[in-house]
Amino acid sequence: MAKRKCMFRAVGTHEQHYGPKTVDSQAGRRNLGQTFHLVKTQSLRKEASVAFKDQFRDHPTLGFVDWVLRGVGQVVFQNNPISGAVILGGIFYNSWIYGAVSLLGTIISTLTALLFKADRGMVKDGLFGFNGALMAIALVAYTSKDFTHGDVPNGYLWLYIVLCAVFTSVLVPAFAALLGPHKVPGLTMPFVLATWFFLGALLQFTTIDVSNALKPTSPSDFTGPRPDYTWITWFHGITMGIAEIFFQDNWVTGVVILIAIAINTRIGALMALMGSALAVGTAVFYGAHDEAIRDGLFGYNAALTAMALGGFFLVLNLPGFLYTVIGVLVTARVWASIGIWLEPTGMPVLTSAFVFVTWLMLLAKPGFTVLIPVAPADATTPEENLQRHRKSQKR
Amino acid sequence: MAKRKCMFRAVGTHEQHYGPKTVDSQAGRRNLGQTFHLVKTQSLRKEASVAFKDQFRDHPTLGFVDWVLRGVGQVVFQNNPISGAVILGGIFYNSWIYGAVSLLGTIISTLTALLFKADRGMVKDGLFGFNGALMAIALVAYTSKDFTHGDVPNGYLWLYIVLCAVFTSVLVPAFAALLGPHKVPGLTMPFVLATWFFLGALLQFTTIDVSNALKPTSPSDFTGPRPDYTWITWFHGITMGIAEIFFQDNWVTGVVILIAIAINTRIGALMALMGSALAVGTAVFYGAHDEAIRDGLFGYNAALTAMALGGFFLVLNLPGFLYTVIGVLVTARVWASIGIWLEPTGMPVLTSAFVFVTWLMLLAKPGFTVLIPVAPADATTPEENLQRHRKSQKR
Amino acid sequence: MAKRKCMFRAVGTHEQHYGPKTVDSQAGRRNLGQTFHLVKTQSLRKEASVAFKDQFRDHPTLGFVDWVLRGVGQVVFQNNPISGAVILGGIFYNSWIYGAVSLLGTIISTLTALLFKADRGMVKDGLFGFNGALMAIALVAYTSKDFTHGDVPNGYLWLYIVLCAVFTSVLVPAFAALLGPHKVPGLTMPFVLATWFFLGALLQFTTIDVSNALKPTSPSDFTGPRPDYTWITWFHGITMGIAEIFFQDNWVTGVVILIAIAINTRIGALMALMGSALAVGTAVFYGAHDEAIRDGLFGYNAALTAMALGGFFLVLNLPGFLYTVIGVLVTARVWASIGIWLEPTGMPVLTSAFVFVTWLMLLAKPGFTVLIPVAPADATTPEENLQRHRKSQKR
Repeated sequence: MAKRKCMFRAVGTHEQHYGPKTVDSQAGRRNLGQTFHLVKTQSLRKEASVAFKDQFRDHPTLGFVDWVLRGVGQVVFQNNPISGAVILGGIFYNSWIYGAVSLLGTIISTLTALLFKADRGMVKDGLFGFNGALMAIALVAYTSKDFTHGDVPNGYLWLYIVLCAVFTSVLVPAFAALLGPHKVPGLTMPFVLATWFFLGALLQFTTIDVSNALKPTSPSDFTGPRPDYTWITWFHGITMGIAEIFFQDNWVTGVVILIAIAINTRIGALMALMGSALAVGTAVFYGAHDEAIRDGLFGYNAALTAMALGGFFLVLNLPGFLYTVIGVLVTARVWASIGIWLEPTGMPVLTSAFVFVTWLMLLAKPGFTVLIPVAPADATTPEENLQRHRKSQKR
Repeated sequence: MAKRKCMFRAVGTHEQHYGPKTVDSQAGRRNLGQTFHLVKTQSLRKEASVAFKDQFRDHPTLGFVDWVLRGVGQVVFQNNPISGAVILGGIFYNSWIYGAVSLLGTIISTLTALLFKADRGMVKDGLFGFNGALMAIALVAYTSKDFTHGDVPNGYLWLYIVLCAVFTSVLVPAFAALLGPHKVPGLTMPFVLATWFFLGALLQFTTIDVSNALKPTSPSDFTGPRPDYTWITWFHGITMGIAEIFFQDNWVTGVVILIAIAINTRIGALMALMGSALAVGTAVFYGAHDEAIRDGLFGYNAALTAMALGGFFLVLNLPGFLYTVIGVLVTARVWASIGIWLEPTGMPVLTSAFVFVTWLMLLAKPGFTVLIPVAPADATTPEENLQRHRKSQKR
Repeated sequence: MAKRKCMFRAVGTHEQHYGPKTVDSQAGRRNLGQTFHLVKTQSLRKEASVAFKDQFRDHPTLGFVDWVLRGVGQVVFQNNPISGAVILGGIFYNSWIYGAVSLLGTIISTLTALLFKADRGMVKDGLFGFNGALMAIALVAYTSKDFTHGDVPNGYLWLYIVLCAVFTSVLVPAFAALLGPHKVPGLTMPFVLATWFFLGALLQFTTIDVSNALKPTSPSDFTGPRPDYTWITWFHGITMGIAEIFFQDNWVTGVVILIAIAINTRIGALMALMGSALAVGTAVFYGAHDEAIRDGLFGYNAALTAMALGGFFLVLNLPGFLYTVIGVLVTARVWASIGIWLEPTGMPVLTSAFVFVTWLMLLAKPGFTVLIPVAPADATTPEENLQRHRKSQKR
């Protein structure tokens, strides 16, 4: 099974473009946990870890490592090198090949941004790295006989991945230019578009072969009796729904990624879990293929939408939560739909369902007065966004 | 036969965003018919009906019914509950199922806008309802063995339609955000996109089956002798071209819809008729499949383009009329083309041809100085738009 | 062989919108060659020819001929009637049919702009003509049994081309409206979109048949041994890569077009050559079908990207050159990819790969501070753009 894919996030934290935010949000971070009940009990440990997580961001030599790790973390919206390191560990646990290529993708993308002198604040926050990480895994996964662990790329593919990583870094400011005026982030669209472009081209080249996962078919309706779902459907569906964000067919990796998110934000981790679970619920309710659910294919886009809308780019008030649930339920359907639309070409959905639904629902925010948007440059964690909003209301 | 689809319109009348327009256009409505020759003879009756049509718009209890009926009317650009009621009658005449689901779609979409506190003026003008109306009919039509009258939906499908109606209401401000700066309305794109997304997903679910109308094929060229067209080709082609806007295979319904439009605007009705007729003329001239023409498939997008460009979003002067004819002729071809492009996926064209052509031709308006644009918020009827323009020139 | 395509360029030189630029750039033209080393030796001849090339632009009767010839030249970014005339000669050398229809397309598109009173400066610069030229050749090529020379169109097709040429002129300001705020030109998107729309529709009409070049297939991976490439692969690949911009299967025409470009700008001609060569290099390195390379299919999009990014819309400094090389390498892959994506529909790639990559890379320019953008209205030739930039830095 292989219609996979994944990932995200983009225009945040232009310090340069949006003015200095560090003072405010740094203060926000320090105070975090003192007023917000969910994390109240851990305020001391949290305060220490916050300080710890940012201490290498501006380091002259170790800074680059910090930015690359943040790049991995930004796939799931975590501007935190520790989260990135834990996720990377989870990927290496499943496959050293995927671990290595995702590192390569992140490094090349980040270097490209430095070479062309992109906004330094964005580079440091890992916002030029995460698309490269996902793209590199995707190109290896769809050219490997063994999708689960990946085959070692040949020399042609290594070079091909390098150029594609460069291109993803070009696409980051391109989508920022298009969506910036609407205060909507580019999300993982650079990864999706670059991978679609570079994956399709591989079919025309004899030096790199693609896997059977890219076999075109003609859409046909799934009829007949409802499959017999078991607890495995639910358990694997939900945990591998998280792991599939990084194309990993491994439920342990999914749990590790959840932990990595929780290190930085409990609400974010809850949202990811809820997104994946609601998507599995949708699939079970309407009767989807059991194998597709168990492979986590329904969940990964929905988990990302849940994190994006549930507290990150919208303050998590009650209408915001309802809006997030709608977004998650829609994303599960849109993933299924794009899969059908792409079948004649054989191309994978990747994280396109998440990107399209989240874009549309964020574009719509000025139309609904009960929603409280968070500008991409100010979005840090659901907890901090909520806290800052409450503060601003008290004044 | 079943490559069908349908419809439109969106960003109008934000009183809030574009300032209070009611005074002016209300005055315009009152004076309507006094200076404009086409309606001169009916000025008295018209004035009465205008007053009548708006009397429940702000009613505390009956207001919601008014907004829902306007929602049905807005599919064909008519901000008039009487037009909406007559259209609904025409749909019920053909099939009570389609009548019922289109009401449901309109109601849910309108309620969603109220729940998230969207602009009240837009809600009252039915601008959150019309996409839901069309989407609901579409989802039933493409899951029914009997396309003409529709099958009664099962419980799964009812719930599915409700979520999709909610989603269409999210898409209304999303497209308004994207196109608003260009003073271009979202038209029926929320309906088209939501239906494409939700229809495709159905193929992955065993609890709801899709009809043979969604069978994928490989595009092939239509060759051989020109079909023998008869007067039925023309008569059914033109009248069912109007009815197909609402997916109704019934020429009587088409005539009823034309009457419903004429109640609010004679020019609009003439434009719809002209659009459908020019599309049939194109198809006959170039030799299209007789069955496709008779089913009204060439006409429904062209009729909508004719109404949109012919007096509604552009003042109907001579260059505007010529521009409308070009738009209609192009739309007939674009409908045929999108049908071919979508064949491998099996998905229907819906009103996408109308939306794309009208969007592009309205985006182009600042480039052509002979065209006089009408901002979506000011567009009421071709007669009033023309009258206001003439007044503004006299000053 | 027939997955072909072609061409470009758009929003330049609105004198009206962007203020009077003629004085400055006229001066720029006069001074050209005095400071810039590449053309230093030819400064006198150049100065004369510049004066000569603009003498009919404002002529009361011969002006229209001048604008049409510039329209042909603008396909390869050359606002120069002599370049246009030489290119037209190269097309007529290969096929009088393609020469005639490209003239017709350019004339109808230009007349449409005059009829609807578009910006006169843009009309005079040929910016309404080039899309019509390419579209007309494309519609004939894909409806001819003989792709290389084209069949004489029947009456239905002539009329069909006329309407499509009108439509391309509507699309020019439409894309200008969308991309103008980003200072990104519409390029050949009007040609690509109009041709996709009008070509697809032909399959539904019996009076005009399409060629086998539009046969849909299912994507399949190219495997097996690397083809045996020869010097013909390189020579035909590069020269026909230039000729294919205009759909001409003739290497002599390719050389003539290169000369036509060099008449106006040496750097532009070098870029076109480099673009086509790098694309052939990519194809040979990764092992593409020999026939596709020799037909120039890899080169034509890459040559256009090279000209657009290499000095025309970006000042040609070292980072700009590196950025151009990246764009060219990406374009070669994206051409291959879009070909695969479109296979189920049978539709041709045209110049879509060039348009998408160049759009994205120009949208990204504000994000990279080492790049120096040239606004479409100021873009004349790489030499002049560079000279003006150097002047502005001296101040």
